[in-house]
Amino acid sequence: MVNNSILKAEILSQALPYIQKYNNKIVVIKYGGNAMINEELKMNVITDVVLLSEIGVKVILVHGGGPEINGTLKKIGKESKFINGLRYTDEETIDVVQMVLAGKTNKDLVKLIMQKGGNATGISGIDNMLIEAEKYESEDDLGYVGAVKEIHPNIIMDMLDKGYIPVIASVGMDKDGHTYNINADTAAAEIASAVGAENMILVSDIPGLLEDKDDENTLLPLVHVYEVNSLMNKGIISGGMIPKVDCCVRAIRQNVKKAVIIDGRIPHSILIEMLSKDGIGTMFKR
Amino acid sequence: MVNNSILKAEILSQALPYIQKYNNKIVVIKYGGNAMINEELKMNVITDVVLLSEIGVKVILVHGGGPEINGTLKKIGKESKFINGLRYTDEETIDVVQMVLAGKTNKDLVKLIMQKGGNATGISGIDNMLIEAEKYESEDDLGYVGAVKEIHPNIIMDMLDKGYIPVIASVGMDKDGHTYNINADTAAAEIASAVGAENMILVSDIPGLLEDKDDENTLLPLVHVYEVNSLMNKGIISGGMIPKVDCCVRAIRQNVKKAVIIDGRIPHSILIEMLSKDGIGTMFKR
Amino acid sequence: MVNNSILKAEILSQALPYIQKYNNKIVVIKYGGNAMINEELKMNVITDVVLLSEIGVKVILVHGGGPEINGTLKKIGKESKFINGLRYTDEETIDVVQMVLAGKTNKDLVKLIMQKGGNATGISGIDNMLIEAEKYESEDDLGYVGAVKEIHPNIIMDMLDKGYIPVIASVGMDKDGHTYNINADTAAAEIASAVGAENMILVSDIPGLLEDKDDENTLLPLVHVYEVNSLMNKGIISGGMIPKVDCCVRAIRQNVKKAVIIDGRIPHSILIEMLSKDGIGTMFKR
Amino acid sequence: MVNNSILKAEILSQALPYIQKYNNKIVVIKYGGNAMINEELKMNVITDVVLLSEIGVKVILVHGGGPEINGTLKKIGKESKFINGLRYTDEETIDVVQMVLAGKTNKDLVKLIMQKGGNATGISGIDNMLIEAEKYESEDDLGYVGAVKEIHPNIIMDMLDKGYIPVIASVGMDKDGHTYNINADTAAAEIASAVGAENMILVSDIPGLLEDKDDENTLLPLVHVYEVNSLMNKGIISGGMIPKVDCCVRAIRQNVKKAVIIDGRIPHSILIEMLSKDGIGTMFKR
Amino acid sequence: MVNNSILKAEILSQALPYIQKYNNKIVVIKYGGNAMINEELKMNVITDVVLLSEIGVKVILVHGGGPEINGTLKKIGKESKFINGLRYTDEETIDVVQMVLAGKTNKDLVKLIMQKGGNATGISGIDNMLIEAEKYESEDDLGYVGAVKEIHPNIIMDMLDKGYIPVIASVGMDKDGHTYNINADTAAAEIASAVGAENMILVSDIPGLLEDKDDENTLLPLVHVYEVNSLMNKGIISGGMIPKVDCCVRAIRQNVKKAVIIDGRIPHSILIEMLSKDGIGTMFKR
Amino acid sequence: MVNNSILKAEILSQALPYIQKYNNKIVVIKYGGNAMINEELKMNVITDVVLLSEIGVKVILVHGGGPEINGTLKKIGKESKFINGLRYTDEETIDVVQMVLAGKTNKDLVKLIMQKGGNATGISGIDNMLIEAEKYESEDDLGYVGAVKEIHPNIIMDMLDKGYIPVIASVGMDKDGHTYNINADTAAAEIASAVGAENMILVSDIPGLLEDKDDENTLLPLVHVYEVNSLMNKGIISGGMIPKVDCCVRAIRQNVKKAVIIDGRIPHSILIEMLSKDGIGTMFKR
Repeated sequence: MVNNSILKAEILSQALPYIQKYNNKIVVIKYGGNAMINEELKMNVITDVVLLSEIGVKVILVHGGGPEINGTLKKIGKESKFINGLRYTDEETIDVVQMVLAGKTNKDLVKLIMQKGGNATGISGIDNMLIEAEKYESEDDLGYVGAVKEIHPNIIMDMLDKGYIPVIASVGMDKDGHTYNINADTAAAEIASAVGAENMILVSDIPGLLEDKDDENTLLPLVHVYEVNSLMNKGIISGGMIPKVDCCVRAIRQNVKKAVIIDGRIPHSILIEMLSKDGIGTMFKR
Repeated sequence: MVNNSILKAEILSQALPYIQKYNNKIVVIKYGGNAMINEELKMNVITDVVLLSEIGVKVILVHGGGPEINGTLKKIGKESKFINGLRYTDEETIDVVQMVLAGKTNKDLVKLIMQKGGNATGISGIDNMLIEAEKYESEDDLGYVGAVKEIHPNIIMDMLDKGYIPVIASVGMDKDGHTYNINADTAAAEIASAVGAENMILVSDIPGLLEDKDDENTLLPLVHVYEVNSLMNKGIISGGMIPKVDCCVRAIRQNVKKAVIIDGRIPHSILIEMLSKDGIGTMFKR
Repeated sequence: MVNNSILKAEILSQALPYIQKYNNKIVVIKYGGNAMINEELKMNVITDVVLLSEIGVKVILVHGGGPEINGTLKKIGKESKFINGLRYTDEETIDVVQMVLAGKTNKDLVKLIMQKGGNATGISGIDNMLIEAEKYESEDDLGYVGAVKEIHPNIIMDMLDKGYIPVIASVGMDKDGHTYNINADTAAAEIASAVGAENMILVSDIPGLLEDKDDENTLLPLVHVYEVNSLMNKGIISGGMIPKVDCCVRAIRQNVKKAVIIDGRIPHSILIEMLSKDGIGTMFKR
Repeated sequence: MVNNSILKAEILSQALPYIQKYNNKIVVIKYGGNAMINEELKMNVITDVVLLSEIGVKVILVHGGGPEINGTLKKIGKESKFINGLRYTDEETIDVVQMVLAGKTNKDLVKLIMQKGGNATGISGIDNMLIEAEKYESEDDLGYVGAVKEIHPNIIMDMLDKGYIPVIASVGMDKDGHTYNINADTAAAEIASAVGAENMILVSDIPGLLEDKDDENTLLPLVHVYEVNSLMNKGIISGGMIPKVDCCVRAIRQNVKKAVIIDGRIPHSILIEMLSKDGIGTMFKR
Repeated sequence: MVNNSILKAEILSQALPYIQKYNNKIVVIKYGGNAMINEELKMNVITDVVLLSEIGVKVILVHGGGPEINGTLKKIGKESKFINGLRYTDEETIDVVQMVLAGKTNKDLVKLIMQKGGNATGISGIDNMLIEAEKYESEDDLGYVGAVKEIHPNIIMDMLDKGYIPVIASVGMDKDGHTYNINADTAAAEIASAVGAENMILVSDIPGLLEDKDDENTLLPLVHVYEVNSLMNKGIISGGMIPKVDCCVRAIRQNVKKAVIIDGRIPHSILIEMLSKDGIGTMFKR
Repeated sequence: MVNNSILKAEILSQALPYIQKYNNKIVVIKYGGNAMINEELKMNVITDVVLLSEIGVKVILVHGGGPEINGTLKKIGKESKFINGLRYTDEETIDVVQMVLAGKTNKDLVKLIMQKGGNATGISGIDNMLIEAEKYESEDDLGYVGAVKEIHPNIIMDMLDKGYIPVIASVGMDKDGHTYNINADTAAAEIASAVGAENMILVSDIPGLLEDKDDENTLLPLVHVYEVNSLMNKGIISGGMIPKVDCCVRAIRQNVKKAVIIDGRIPHSILIEMLSKDGIGTMFKR
């Protein structure tokens, strides 16, 4: 038993340089989509968030909530209409989006963090107008699909200052009082920039960027911002990865030190990424 | 025009002693139920809240959301089951309650306050476990109908300290992570007690306590706590008024200075109650 | 009665945007001369000062005290000698000026504010050498008539910081310990500049700037600084108005947002000016 | 020259234990009456006050102003009326008292301290109602002769906190706005008690308490409170000394550590009292 | 590699409840004697101290330095004289003790912590008279062997407050300026009591308390204070263990929550004790 | 006796302008070498340090310890080897240097200050890596003779902030954990620069800079930095004075206002230098 304890303690002590590195630094973790479905993984993400918070990292958790929105829309018999792959968001839909993200997903995450011993407070981009939004401009009218106009980060800074973990639902509002649906990756990137985060982590359900998308052994562990264009041209960054990578690039251009896409299906992937020399997933750097 | 201005200024100056009285004091305003339906009155309530906040009162807004919960339950085709006048709240229902209160009503109130120039942040009794709840004990199993076990007011005090108006959805959680539906009047009374409020105001859709419930001229402007029993015996406090009066009495017994039931249908009834010598509705005092 | 209350509350709520605008901003109010004689108007000014203070405006009250100085000089049988309209101020006279302004007028204003529930502390330009003065340069020797050499605003800022209303008697001192009589309008303008005031209000006994000085209907409600020269050339700004307007211009040039000459004879003229869209008197702006 | 310097430095270094003893402690110095007349001695008192302040003592200077009041009353031709040795103070007289003490004596002391490099701010018992007064009860109506009803010491504490030397004119006010003349020794004693002073020093123009009032060699350097009655019976405390000793006793009974009556005619008597083992004058102790 | 990382992260996440438990709590670690000789173990102790500090524990390191003192005494040719097993400490010896503990051992520990990324500042019981000592009373004169008279913990609290790890050499001083040699276990226990520590850890070179001192499998993992007497009577606590256990008991009686004797030869024994459910060594509790 | 007291008080009051000048300013005093041998003079230096600290000067005491190092080296039979007048410092020697400076001299000074009523805390350049050192570059290998690479002044500022007198032993460390012997004059100059000191005082055992080194009457009381070269060329600055003057010049070039070499053999030379118009020794200025 003692030998086992020594091993464990040795592992803890190896984490020391990483703990020092992130001490008092802000890290934005975006968690959402399919990575949210598996309950065990969700628990792992929550445990990681609480552990990071306890060892002195200032964690901000930004979330979307895809599956739960679809479930509720289905329940009320609302048919989804898509235009170029983006959901047309009428008034009834945005009501459901706000309600599910800010009232269901957000509070369920808060409850889990509280149960694990963390101090979480859930807000949305509406609260204190954290995310000032505007209509997302596109050829077709998409309704209340929003773009970030400005982040007003005071409420987050005040919460971090008082020792809370802010859990943020990715909806925004404009000055006329309309709610907009904001892509959670985008919200995370803009918030990370506005608060001067050290690190942005997008927890997804893929291993990261693969040179050959069918072979996990071809994972690219590090991509510099200047390599992104070439990777797009080669088709290595394609499809759903394009907006994710765009968010990473945007965050880095606005002075976030690094942005990482990690695989939420791997247990404790956030801790591995932050507290070991191995890292995991694909890291983007300047 | 100048004469008109003088009159206005004279009225402002008459409000001075009341402004002094409530300066830096905490006031809990409970707003909900039918009083929420009329949009114009809702706007008046919001304007009053922002004005009070601007002149130095520390306002906490607690809300329920009856009609919107019913609307959403209806939309998803959930039939309501009542036991002794209380709604049986199964898991699906409590999910809708949490979602509507914390995600819809709460954020809509925040948006209105922001538009009026206030600094509102919406949370629920779940956030930082503000309202620790337990199952409401009754003969029949009512599901997730909750009672307040303990208020953890830090998050509210921190928000007031940083200058935000806390807007609070009346749901609670227990340590196992279950959400409970908490009566908003009860939540307001317990929060008012926990934060040492000067005043609790229940904004309703009735004029107050009437000696003859069909004659508004028989309004009782002031009731002392020791008179309550006798008024119940006489049937003057009866029906839906009983729990409301109970909340007022409970708040006062826990050192809230006064508790008032006012008529939300009267424009600016909150301001009238707080900033004039006339008052409005029925005030409960020790 | 309720209707009356609604009207009052409506008026209070209309003041909200102005209350928000001046929240935590510094406003310098200069009150003196003939506007001080009428006791009822004095009470109105005091009530306005206390109300503004209570709703979060940081008010500084600067005063002169013409009539009382004359009264005391007469009592001690001192004959006044005037040179080009300015009083020759010998040592005996400056003693009386200091004594009356700092000991009589100042403390009487403090007493009135205290009685109205404000927290006033009266000081003079001598205290902590708030107003460092030098001899006013003119062709003839005017004795201890002073010009402002430098404002040392710490004592005011400390008082505002601790929640007091500073009431300031407009005398100054030089480093050799001589007292100088400082024109109260000038003192107000220089103090407003030094503390970064939002607004300077000169409470006088005239309606403001009139195009035709015999017709109050020709009041100019707004004058831009660049219009002042032309108004002087036209004779619209003339006589005793010239130094007053000079003070307004000087304050604005040193970054005070606006300067207003209002009629102290109108009840609550300060509140009307600050908390209504109507305004009153003549406002000077950049 | 060096030898001289060594001697001076040796003297400074001998003051060390006394400097340590009074560091950050509050000392109330009352200065007034005849001790104020000699300009050279006044300068010595001022220098002592500034030195004490610079080496970390929190000095409060309370003053009366007898001779100057008489001078001004004479100038305005006001005849003084005495009842049992106390001046009958009608409305005209109290006006002069307030004006002279708060406007003349107070500001002149402030000017002297400023010139010596101290940070003085002069207020009176009226400011922020520091000295709440009431009519002094006696057989005959004495007009506005006042007794201390309550000290509200916030304004003094705030000034000490911000590093100013408060200079306080001994007039008070009641809640109806009347000014009262307060005996400066009494004001000093009550203020010393209210602020928890370590030491109260009454600077007078006598050597202290003499066993034989014609022989300065019979000075009593230390009197315990319990000895006072016996000294009164023996006639050693008599005449004008009685109220002075009463103030000392009253201060000590309200927890001021010691009270001293010193001779303001001796140069630097305050420094000698506070910073040497010799002491000077008569000290009263529990 | 990923599997390995997952395991590591899992271990980190299991430490979470212990990290939460000690967050912002004070822990006194006493390190000295033979446990100091092995360089690798010393490095492990240092790493543990820095890790604990980084994850929010307020660590105080108290040390003795036996072997180094002996080495230096030998170098200067000073023969050691023992009385009843205690070293007779003459003036020359106490000089060496002070010099070695405060100048050599102390600074060497500081250097190691600095190299590992911690913020250490080394002081001794002399600095700011942290350990006020007196002569240890015994039948024979032992010279400058000291007992703790009083702990003045301000300097430690200030250092913890500013984020430093205090490293404390166990010598003390009396008011006459004599240095005393203080047993390091005793110093740790008294300091732990004075600062309100949660936990005191004595790092030694034995496994803990053994029922059979020749069989490590008979380790007593938990001893309550009330069991100590009986264990002494049975001879299970004996010899050099007696003073160590006395220190533990004394600390607990003065409200330290627990005291543990652990085996410094086991790598990371401090982390194992504090961050795992296994614990290590013998824990004393109320 | 009174006359004597008056004289003393007069001298105290003459020190006022100097006390004001240094209030809250940082002064670095370097004390060491032969000036440390005489016990009476040491006591004078300590008294001066405590007095300055009590009257509001932020004193930092930097010390070397020549004679004590030699004594200990001799005791352990270590022969000193000199290269070009600098001691070759091998590992055994640097161990002794660290031990004596940080453990003996440092703590003995702390004890003296504590006995005189000051609040001293002794650290070394090792603590919190205050003095980051590197090998002193010279033709011959001198071992662990160090140069200052960087000062990390946080620990000093934190101590001053909390009201302690930092006493600093002039050894440094590099990032590999080696200790280096740092010349105390150099350490004082670099620390004075890093903390923005007003004044650096080198207490030595010579009168200052003499034009004719055999005639104390030829003392140069003031030397400007631009005169130094010429004085070196003339041979007036020569021998052991060259490095001392270099330190003064270096401190002044890095914005220390003045640097003074004073004669520690004169009683209270520090007080004379700082608190009188006479000054003492040789002052260097820009």
